[in-house]
Amino acid sequence: MRVTVRGVVVGGSVGVLLTTVLLWSQCHPPPPHTHHHYQHNPSSQSVGKQQQLHRSPLQTKLQSGNGIGGGGVGDESYLEEEYGGGGGGANGDLHNINQPGDGVVGGEVSPVIAASTRLVEIPCVINHESEISCRRDAQDIYIPFTFIKNYFEVYGRIDQKSDGSDVFEWSHSYSRVYEPQGLYNPTGTFLNFELYNVEARERVKCVSATEGVPISTQWQSSGYTYPIQIAQFGLSHYCKHLTEQLPQRYVLEDGVLHKGTWLAEGVGAKVTRTLDPISFSNVLKFRTPESFSKGGAVLRINDSSTQNLIVLNLNILLQGNASFTVSMEYKYKKTEILRLHYIRSEKLLQVKDHQIFYGLGEEQGWRRITRNLLIDVHKGAAASPQLRKQFKKVSKSKLKVISISLNGEGSLKNMTLSSAEHLLHFYDAANWLLNHQDEQGGWSIPVPRKVISGVLELESGWYSAMAQGQAMSLLVRAAHHSGDSRYLKAALRATALFSVNSTRGGVRTYFPGGYVWYEEYPTNPSLFVLNGFIYSLLGLYDLKEFSTGTSNNSGDLFDEGMKSLKKLLPLFDTGWGSLYDLRHFTTHVAPNRARWDYHTTHITQLLLLASVDSDPVISSTAQRWKDYMVGHRASHN
Amino acid sequence: MRVTVRGVVVGGSVGVLLTTVLLWSQCHPPPPHTHHHYQHNPSSQSVGKQQQLHRSPLQTKLQSGNGIGGGGVGDESYLEEEYGGGGGGANGDLHNINQPGDGVVGGEVSPVIAASTRLVEIPCVINHESEISCRRDAQDIYIPFTFIKNYFEVYGRIDQKSDGSDVFEWSHSYSRVYEPQGLYNPTGTFLNFELYNVEARERVKCVSATEGVPISTQWQSSGYTYPIQIAQFGLSHYCKHLTEQLPQRYVLEDGVLHKGTWLAEGVGAKVTRTLDPISFSNVLKFRTPESFSKGGAVLRINDSSTQNLIVLNLNILLQGNASFTVSMEYKYKKTEILRLHYIRSEKLLQVKDHQIFYGLGEEQGWRRITRNLLIDVHKGAAASPQLRKQFKKVSKSKLKVISISLNGEGSLKNMTLSSAEHLLHFYDAANWLLNHQDEQGGWSIPVPRKVISGVLELESGWYSAMAQGQAMSLLVRAAHHSGDSRYLKAALRATALFSVNSTRGGVRTYFPGGYVWYEEYPTNPSLFVLNGFIYSLLGLYDLKEFSTGTSNNSGDLFDEGMKSLKKLLPLFDTGWGSLYDLRHFTTHVAPNRARWDYHTTHITQLLLLASVDSDPVISSTAQRWKDYMVGHRASHN
Repeated sequence: MRVTVRGVVVGGSVGVLLTTVLLWSQCHPPPPHTHHHYQHNPSSQSVGKQQQLHRSPLQTKLQSGNGIGGGGVGDESYLEEEYGGGGGGANGDLHNINQPGDGVVGGEVSPVIAASTRLVEIPCVINHESEISCRRDAQDIYIPFTFIKNYFEVYGRIDQKSDGSDVFEWSHSYSRVYEPQGLYNPTGTFLNFELYNVEARERVKCVSATEGVPISTQWQSSGYTYPIQIAQFGLSHYCKHLTEQLPQRYVLEDGVLHKGTWLAEGVGAKVTRTLDPISFSNVLKFRTPESFSKGGAVLRINDSSTQNLIVLNLNILLQGNASFTVSMEYKYKKTEILRLHYIRSEKLLQVKDHQIFYGLGEEQGWRRITRNLLIDVHKGAAASPQLRKQFKKVSKSKLKVISISLNGEGSLKNMTLSSAEHLLHFYDAANWLLNHQDEQGGWSIPVPRKVISGVLELESGWYSAMAQGQAMSLLVRAAHHSGDSRYLKAALRATALFSVNSTRGGVRTYFPGGYVWYEEYPTNPSLFVLNGFIYSLLGLYDLKEFSTGTSNNSGDLFDEGMKSLKKLLPLFDTGWGSLYDLRHFTTHVAPNRARWDYHTTHITQLLLLASVDSDPVISSTAQRWKDYMVGHRASHN
Repeated sequence: MRVTVRGVVVGGSVGVLLTTVLLWSQCHPPPPHTHHHYQHNPSSQSVGKQQQLHRSPLQTKLQSGNGIGGGGVGDESYLEEEYGGGGGGANGDLHNINQPGDGVVGGEVSPVIAASTRLVEIPCVINHESEISCRRDAQDIYIPFTFIKNYFEVYGRIDQKSDGSDVFEWSHSYSRVYEPQGLYNPTGTFLNFELYNVEARERVKCVSATEGVPISTQWQSSGYTYPIQIAQFGLSHYCKHLTEQLPQRYVLEDGVLHKGTWLAEGVGAKVTRTLDPISFSNVLKFRTPESFSKGGAVLRINDSSTQNLIVLNLNILLQGNASFTVSMEYKYKKTEILRLHYIRSEKLLQVKDHQIFYGLGEEQGWRRITRNLLIDVHKGAAASPQLRKQFKKVSKSKLKVISISLNGEGSLKNMTLSSAEHLLHFYDAANWLLNHQDEQGGWSIPVPRKVISGVLELESGWYSAMAQGQAMSLLVRAAHHSGDSRYLKAALRATALFSVNSTRGGVRTYFPGGYVWYEEYPTNPSLFVLNGFIYSLLGLYDLKEFSTGTSNNSGDLFDEGMKSLKKLLPLFDTGWGSLYDLRHFTTHVAPNRARWDYHTTHITQLLLLASVDSDPVISSTAQRWKDYMVGHRASHN
């Protein structure tokens, strides 16, 4: 007899035998269902006698907008999906999608006898509305995960155990809760901000070379300063300063111990060392062609120990159209040179070929300029169709600073390359806040914001209690670290808007019954965003604790706010998750469920507050909201 | 070669061939996933070429407490799971559990070649916590439904298409929404109460023979009158009166046209017809042994047209220890006689062997007594370990009234057997309300109630806005139907407690901001139960509309209540279901999710209110809550 097996015709009794063996090998009944209580150690468990037949790629897409590096949706209030930053850990993997090409192509039959099941197809009608194809055996019906994940918004992927066998990892949620590390200290770390990488977010156009702060493009593509983003940038660097090891620093020039070999290139180029009479320090004076292509005071950097030191810090005085250029070598299949030019311009960022231009603005005089060169490359590449593919996420191991050129006329005091300069970024943010606080004590947002199009909209110039609060948290830390009273004064001034109603350009509103709320988005009708309110409370708390010597109302504002929080927090509990805001209550639209990364932000915030206020509603809510993340839900009646 | 197939050793090449054919028949790959949009007509769709292999029983248990006939949990506020009553329909089947024994024993192989799949087992780790066994093929992972249904609280069962093939019916929810039939009329039907069968509920001990109203055992096993239950009993019969066909009635005795053949049995037994001087009507006077076993005035009923007429109505005067007995014949495998004795006793219900005793109480004088004999048998059997199994749910087709005996001394005016006497049950309830309304205008509940043990408890004697409202709805209809002003007066008196705070023994509370709420359970702190509040609003509405000629505050109470409802309704919306109450807000326990039959009650109530108040929050909420029932959910941010 002839039998066709998988498209191959096999003749005679051999064929029959072969067929039998092949079919039999795939038709053993499986072991029955086993429910194991799992001890958090996937690799150590084995399930019955399952052996690998073949590995199939499972395409499990995350919800849109939740990819690593920040989605396009939402705002600064939660937005960290960084797991590599410092916390890393298993949960980070929850985002990994098992991509095709990861494993063996489906359909191959291994010689090992697999535990396969006789399962037949059964149509499944969903809620009398639609139909899908399921499977069944003697014991159960089996539902395809591609259906489950969309219907229920859960996640899953195939992983490998330590023995190489496949296991399917089901996740009810994504994102991590951050457990507070000891008592909260208003001059210490802030929440889990050491895990944030604000400048890496997609919606950050670049870090400005004018003031060293991130520029947002979230609600306006030309870019604007968003106070919350700037504050989070500063806070994240402060936290990293506290939690990371001391940075490695390589001194390129300091006029004393480390004198770089500067070559004066080009017509009339001159480099001299002199004592600056005003600052009484040794400086390097340069006068070279303004145009980079025509020369410059050039320092070539050969020391391989500068590899991976990607933060450039310099104190420089640039006269007229003076500029400086950092040349970086890109080593992969072929070597290329990227040039970062820091020029006298108001234009934030421009790109031509492999030349990236950052505008320093018009500010004269001595300036400290701190640049994360890797970020500057990434952002320049993101802005260029030519460079994007190759350099938008280029790793620092593939880049090396090879030279620095000073063009035009000016003086240089010092220059270093470091692995990081967190405090300097922190002070750039703190100083931005000092310089841009307006007469109302606020930092207004210069773009309009449509929260619910046609229903809740803010015109440009609006304030945010979250911005005020995050600024306070940053300014308090700057006051503490520097001892400079200007920071504390700015923080104290920042409370004024908390006493002005949203309807009058402030940030204060009330829930029925007189419960005050400080609005992240001060719309009318109100929104009652939860995480932004808590950020504002944390800022008030920081200020209250730090300013005990100075009479001010941060304590009252905090106390009133906490009273509201403890009263209204349950209204954000849906029994299976949390709400982002109370828009359903104020505008009658559908409830606005918090997606998981906001949900974990809520929990993280509550855990911090629980260490400050022992009211059980805070801690019990936090615990219940944690349970929701693994699929538990409140009971029904 | 020898091969063992399913335990049978088959030799030689025949064995090989047989094996091959058998295995091959079970190993065809299935057609790929198909998603069909389903047009509400399961039987007309077919899925690929699936043919039946075997039918497996799928044990899909409902949530506890939700069986047909009423669960043990909860109260009158939602409690209808009747689908056979009048509305019936497909959704009723959602409760049916495919029981073992329904179909073919699992494991049999039909000779038809089945579309089966090569599916292998894969362990699946759930949220890093536990492990289950799933299946996979080249395209997908398949999750066992037994896991899905518990994890997500969904429902499913195997059904058969018209061609006999199996289909799996997935249901996100159970219970039905009732669409209002035209504009709401306060003297017409009430919600979907024609579908209710209050007396059939498990927690109804019996219908009292003292006053013809249901007795509850929900919170006290000896039984007590629960005003809400009594009102719902009355309203359901009123609705059935309006919606059902006229009842069939068989006159057993009326003293004029229909004179039954009464036999005077026993020592000294006498039966005479006479004109009663007081009521000026022909009556049947009887004087017979008080003990049923010793005789009585006996009417034997032979006419087969009385089969299925199970409601006995009589006007009788019973002197001293007089009583009457209904003898019913039970015809199944063997014939048995059940006797229902209605005796002079305060004991609600007693059972000895096949004798069931209902206490008529001590009230003297002429009485109309209306008994649903089937219910009386069911409840008697439920109370007797002996009778329970056979008679607790005996169908009326198996019972027949064979005789009625009058014992002791008294007079009978008339007696009928009907298919139903809805109006009489209605008036029994209305009159109970008249007779038991207290000086505060309320009907208090005579048992304590632990809403949340140790946190929210009510002592006996508490009032309920829901009881007040349901009573109003019933009394308004009684006033309308009878023209008797006592009913309207009682309804008007019933509003007083709406102006007394819960803390002072009334039913009124306030949500922050001054929003009034009428409490179903007037606890302290408050509960804000939604469905009970709406029932109270409907009662106020009925009274407001009916009493326009009389100055009263039902209109104001209704208006204030509606203002609150429209404001606070969103707080009951969780984004995927509704809440039963706001206990999480007032006591900081977990949110109390409404199970599906409460959820549909909410929607049904809102749909009615939407016809009375056009504010879009009512109709849009109702629509959104409908969508939740098929698995839709509010978006996340």
